[in-house]
Amino acid sequence: MNRVQNFLDKVNTPNVCKASNYNELEVLAGEIRKYLIDKVSITGGHLASNLGVVELTLALHNVFDTSKDKIVWDVGHQTYVHKILTGRANEFDTLRQYKGLSGFPKRSESIHDHFDTGHSSTSISAALGMAKARDIKEEDYSVVAVIGDGALTGGMAFEALNHAGHSNTELIVILNDNEMSISPNVGGMSKYLNRLRTDPKYVKVKDEIEQLLNKIPAVGKTMAKTVGKAKDSLKHLLVPGVLFGELGFTYLGPVDGHDIKELKIVLERAKKIKGPVLVHTITKKGKGYSFAEKNPDKYHGISPFDVKSGKTLKKSTKGEESYSSVFGKALVNIGQKNKNVVAITAAMPTGTGLLDFSIKYPERFFDVGIAEQHAVTFAAGLAACGLTPVFAVYSTFLQRAYDQIIHDVCLQNLPVVFCLDRSGIVGNDGETHHGVFDLSFLTSVPNLTVMAPKDGKELENMLEYAVSLNKPVAIRYPRGTSQDFTSISNNYNISSGKSEVLTDGQDVCIIAIGKMVKVAYDAAIKLLDDNINCKVINARFAKPLDKDTLIKECKGIKNVLIIEDNLIKGGFGNKVLELFNEENIKCDLKLLGFPDEFIEHGDTEILMKAYKLDSNSIVQYIKGVL
Amino acid sequence: MNRVQNFLDKVNTPNVCKASNYNELEVLAGEIRKYLIDKVSITGGHLASNLGVVELTLALHNVFDTSKDKIVWDVGHQTYVHKILTGRANEFDTLRQYKGLSGFPKRSESIHDHFDTGHSSTSISAALGMAKARDIKEEDYSVVAVIGDGALTGGMAFEALNHAGHSNTELIVILNDNEMSISPNVGGMSKYLNRLRTDPKYVKVKDEIEQLLNKIPAVGKTMAKTVGKAKDSLKHLLVPGVLFGELGFTYLGPVDGHDIKELKIVLERAKKIKGPVLVHTITKKGKGYSFAEKNPDKYHGISPFDVKSGKTLKKSTKGEESYSSVFGKALVNIGQKNKNVVAITAAMPTGTGLLDFSIKYPERFFDVGIAEQHAVTFAAGLAACGLTPVFAVYSTFLQRAYDQIIHDVCLQNLPVVFCLDRSGIVGNDGETHHGVFDLSFLTSVPNLTVMAPKDGKELENMLEYAVSLNKPVAIRYPRGTSQDFTSISNNYNISSGKSEVLTDGQDVCIIAIGKMVKVAYDAAIKLLDDNINCKVINARFAKPLDKDTLIKECKGIKNVLIIEDNLIKGGFGNKVLELFNEENIKCDLKLLGFPDEFIEHGDTEILMKAYKLDSNSIVQYIKGVL
Repeated sequence: MNRVQNFLDKVNTPNVCKASNYNELEVLAGEIRKYLIDKVSITGGHLASNLGVVELTLALHNVFDTSKDKIVWDVGHQTYVHKILTGRANEFDTLRQYKGLSGFPKRSESIHDHFDTGHSSTSISAALGMAKARDIKEEDYSVVAVIGDGALTGGMAFEALNHAGHSNTELIVILNDNEMSISPNVGGMSKYLNRLRTDPKYVKVKDEIEQLLNKIPAVGKTMAKTVGKAKDSLKHLLVPGVLFGELGFTYLGPVDGHDIKELKIVLERAKKIKGPVLVHTITKKGKGYSFAEKNPDKYHGISPFDVKSGKTLKKSTKGEESYSSVFGKALVNIGQKNKNVVAITAAMPTGTGLLDFSIKYPERFFDVGIAEQHAVTFAAGLAACGLTPVFAVYSTFLQRAYDQIIHDVCLQNLPVVFCLDRSGIVGNDGETHHGVFDLSFLTSVPNLTVMAPKDGKELENMLEYAVSLNKPVAIRYPRGTSQDFTSISNNYNISSGKSEVLTDGQDVCIIAIGKMVKVAYDAAIKLLDDNINCKVINARFAKPLDKDTLIKECKGIKNVLIIEDNLIKGGFGNKVLELFNEENIKCDLKLLGFPDEFIEHGDTEILMKAYKLDSNSIVQYIKGVL
Repeated sequence: MNRVQNFLDKVNTPNVCKASNYNELEVLAGEIRKYLIDKVSITGGHLASNLGVVELTLALHNVFDTSKDKIVWDVGHQTYVHKILTGRANEFDTLRQYKGLSGFPKRSESIHDHFDTGHSSTSISAALGMAKARDIKEEDYSVVAVIGDGALTGGMAFEALNHAGHSNTELIVILNDNEMSISPNVGGMSKYLNRLRTDPKYVKVKDEIEQLLNKIPAVGKTMAKTVGKAKDSLKHLLVPGVLFGELGFTYLGPVDGHDIKELKIVLERAKKIKGPVLVHTITKKGKGYSFAEKNPDKYHGISPFDVKSGKTLKKSTKGEESYSSVFGKALVNIGQKNKNVVAITAAMPTGTGLLDFSIKYPERFFDVGIAEQHAVTFAAGLAACGLTPVFAVYSTFLQRAYDQIIHDVCLQNLPVVFCLDRSGIVGNDGETHHGVFDLSFLTSVPNLTVMAPKDGKELENMLEYAVSLNKPVAIRYPRGTSQDFTSISNNYNISSGKSEVLTDGQDVCIIAIGKMVKVAYDAAIKLLDDNINCKVINARFAKPLDKDTLIKECKGIKNVLIIEDNLIKGGFGNKVLELFNEENIKCDLKLLGFPDEFIEHGDTEILMKAYKLDSNSIVQYIKGVL
C-alpha cells in the first residue's frame, strides 16, 4: 500500500513529467505499467493500447503543458496513462463503472481533456479546428492529435489530412503505429506504413544518393539537365513518408515509441516546425505485459483477469452464448448452403462474431478497415452484381454510414443485410458507444426492413429470412448473452412484418421489441401475482409494422405500453403511435425507452434500472396506472 | 431537323463508338457537343462537366462494352454523353423533368447504367464491390469507376482506394482531373495532382536516372550497396502518381482527356493490367463551348440559356431573393459584429451563399473540400476553442455527417450552427438530392435545437438567435425564392421553442413548419371562401416543441393538421404526435408530408401537387373532413 501511495503522491500532477530526467521517467513508466495492469485486472477495460503508449504519454507531458496545450486522443481508450498523470490516478477503482471514471477522455472530467472521443478517426479534424481557432483568436498553444494506424484508414482522417496538409497551420499529428487497429490492419495504407517501418534508413539512402549525384561529372548538356531534374525529383520523392509529404505534412520518423529520449527530441523538433507535422512513432500494443504483447487483440478490451496467469475471471458462462456468437454460427451455416452470401466487417472480425466465417470462407470475407462508409457502398456494389452481402457492425458505428444506407443501398433497393451488434445499451463504454439511435435513424429510410429478435434462435431465423428477402434488411441485437425463449415460445417462423403474441391477457398489453421482450415477459409473469393479466406482443419488426395483429390484439385494452431499448424520439414506439393515430385506434399508449439525452456509462443492468426499463420498474408502472 | 435525325440515327447504339475510326469519333464528339449545348440550353442541367467528358465517354464505349462491362460514374451528373450513346438521345427534351429522363445514371432507365449515383465519392467503393462479385462468381467483365478530382477529396473515396489498392482485383479507376470540384478544388490532394499535371515528364526522368545509376562505376563496397539501394528506392518512388502507387495502384498518366487516340491506348493498356489501375486523365470542364470554358462554375448546373450569348433565360426575379442569398447576407452582417463567427463549406461556397463572407472574411472562411464528415468535426474543434462555426450545407449532403453531429458536436453540446440549404424538395436533381430526411434524423439527436423559418426575415432572425445560443443548432430552409410574410406577420422575435400563431380560427388548425407555413396560410385564406376559419400555427421549432402554445391553441379544435416537407416517418408531425400523446390531448391529428418512399425528380411545384402538399390539396382535404 505504501508503494501505491508513494506512486499516487508522485503522479498527482503532470509536472512530474517535466521535473523528471530520463532515468526517472523510465522508472515512472514501469510503475505506471504495474499500476495499470493491477487496476484493469480488477475493473476490466482497455489494457493493451494503454500499455503501448506509456512512454509516448510521458514524453507528451514532458514536452507539452496540457493545462493550455491541447491533445486530442483519437478513439480515446488509450488515455488511461494521461488520466493517471492528470490527477485521476486514485479514481481507477471506479474505471468505466456507473458514475465512475470514464474509459474515454471527457472534458467534463478534467481541464486536461480537450475533446471527447470514442469513435475512430476524428482527432485530426478536431485538432485542426482547434489550431485554426488559436490562429484566429491569436492565442498561443500547441495542438496535437494522437491517432493510430488503424484509425488512419477511416476516410474522415484522410479528409482532415488533406485539409490540414496545406493549411499553413501549426499542428502536430502523432501517428501511433502499432501495426493494427483492433485486429491486424488492412489495406494499402497499412502496407505503406510497413515499408516505412522496415526501412528506417530511407533518409540516409536519400542523402547518399544526393551526394552521389553531386559527384557525377556532367558529361554534356543533356546529362547535366538530367542530373538537375533528378535532384529535384529526389528532393520531392525520395524521403520516407512521401505520402504524407505529398499531402503537405513535414514527416518526422519513424521513431521508437518506447524510447522517451528519442520521443522528446522529435516532439521538441515538431513543436518548432512551421506548418503541419506528422510524427511517426512505432509502439508495441500490450508492451511490458507478456500476455498482452502476445495477444493484443484479446487484451484490447478485457474483462477482469488474473495478473499472474493472464486468464480472465469470467463467471461461468456454461450454456450461455452471446448474440455475436449466435450470429457468427448462423452465418457460417447460411454461407455453406448459399454461396452468394458474403460477409463484411469494418475492422471487427472477432467482436462481431465473423471470425469463423472468415476462416471457413476467406474468399467471401472482407475486412475493409475502419471504414463504415466504404463498407456499405462496397456491399451495394456486391449486391448490384448478384451477391448477398451481410455487413456485421456495431450499431453505434453504423451511424457513420447513414447516407450510404439511404443513397447507395435503399434507393436502389439492393439486398444488403445489416447486422447491428451492440444495439441498445453497451454498458461501460458509455455515451459514445450506446446503440440507442438505430431504431430512429433506420425506420425512416424507405425500402428498409428493420427487425430485432427476442432471443438467439429468433436471430438465426431472422438472418435466414433476411438473406432470402432480396431487399435491404437490418437486424439489431444487443451486446451480451442471448436470451432463450425456446421453452416458452413455439413460434419462430419469421414472415414479413409478422409479430408474435407471446402471452395473452386483457388487463394491459405490452408491445416489446428485441431484448425488451424478455423484460416484458418477466413483468407479465410478476404481474400474475397481483392477478393482472398482461398480454405481451413480440413485435419482431420495427418496419414494416404488423398492422393487423397490433390493431386486433390491442382492441378493448385501455393501457398499451410500448417498450424499446432505443431513444423514444423517432424510435419504435413512435412508429406504433403513428400507426394507431392513422388507424384511429383509441387507447392510452405509453412509450417507454430512453429519454432525449445522452446515456452515461455503467453496467447495463444498472443503467436499465436507472432508466426504469427493468421488469420491476415496468411492473410498478403498470400497477400505478391500472 | 435532318441533321439532328441523322445524328440520332447514328448514335442509337453504343456500337457507333466501336465501329468508328479516330476521325469519325472526333466528328462525333463535335456533334455530341452541339447536341448537348442545344438540349441543355432549353431544359437546363449539368453542362460543363458533360462537355468535359465527351472524348472520354467515346473512348470508354470504344474500349468497353457496357452491356456487360460496368462503368460507375461518380456523382453521375456527367453521364449525358453516356446516355446519348446508349439509346437515350431522343429523350433529352424531357431531361430532369417530371417523369422524364433523369440527370443521373439510373439502373431503372437502361441496362447500360450499372449503379445509381448522385452524391460524391461513392464510385470506387461500388466498383470494387462489383469487381469482387465478378471474381467470386467467376464471371468475366471489366469494372471502371470514373471519379473527378473533387470527389477524390471525399473520405470514402480514400477508404475505397485503401481497400482496393491491395485487393489484387482487376479494377480501373479513371481520375477525371479537371482541377476543380464544383468550385476550384482545395487541399493537399489537389496540390499533389497539380504537380503531376505540370510535370508529365516524370516517367522519362525516372528512366534517365536509372540509366545514370547503371553507368556509375561501383567504387568500393559501400558505393555499390548505396547504388543498389538507390535503385530499389527509385523503383518505388520515382514515378508519377507515387501516392496512388503507394496505395497499391498501377498509375497510368497523365493523359490528355480530349485526345481519343491517346485515351484508347491507355484504356486498352489498363484493361490488360492485373490488379487495380488508376488512369489519370486531364480534361477541361466546359470544353468546346467558350462561355462554359471561361466560367465552368456557372455552367456546372445551369438553367435554360441562350446559346449565342451564353446568358441564362431566367424569368424576371425582381424583388425575389433566394434563401441562400438571404442567409449569405445575414451571415456577413453577423460576422461583422461578431468576430468569433466563422463559416465552413464543403466545396459549395457559391451554392450555399457563402461567397460574400469568403471574400469579406477570408481568414474566417473554410472550404474543406467534399468532406462533410471532416467539416462537422472540424467545426466541433473550432467550437471547443471558443469560436462559433456556421456550417452551410445542402440538407442531403449533411446525411454524410450524421455520426459526427451526434458524436462530436451534440454529445459535447458544442455551439455549432448547421444551416441546411435545399431542405425538402430540390426539384430536378431528384431522388438522390431531396432533403426530405433532415427533420427525421436531426430531431432524434439530444441537445440539438432544430428550426425552420417561414420566410427570409425569419431566417435572418433565426441565424442571429442560433449564433447567440451557445449550443448546437440546425436551421433548415428550402431551395429557391424566399417567402415574405412581413406584411402579414408582426412577430419575428425568435425565442427558445416559441411558435407563432399566424391566423386565428376555430374550425380547423394547421401546425406548419418552414416553407409549409406559406402553403398553410394560402389554404387558410382560400378556406375563408367556404366560411371555414382555419388557425395556422408557424411552429418555427421542430425541437424543442412549443408545448404550451400548441396545447393551448389546439384545445377545443377537433381537426388538427400537421404539415411538413419532410418524410412523415420520424419527422416533425411525429414529434407533435408524441407530445399530444404524452399530454393526453384528444383531437384528430392528421400528419401530412412525404410518404415512406423515395421522391422522384421533377419541378418542385409539380411534385408538391403530386404529393398533395400544395394549398389546393390542403383545402380539399380539410373540406373533406369537416
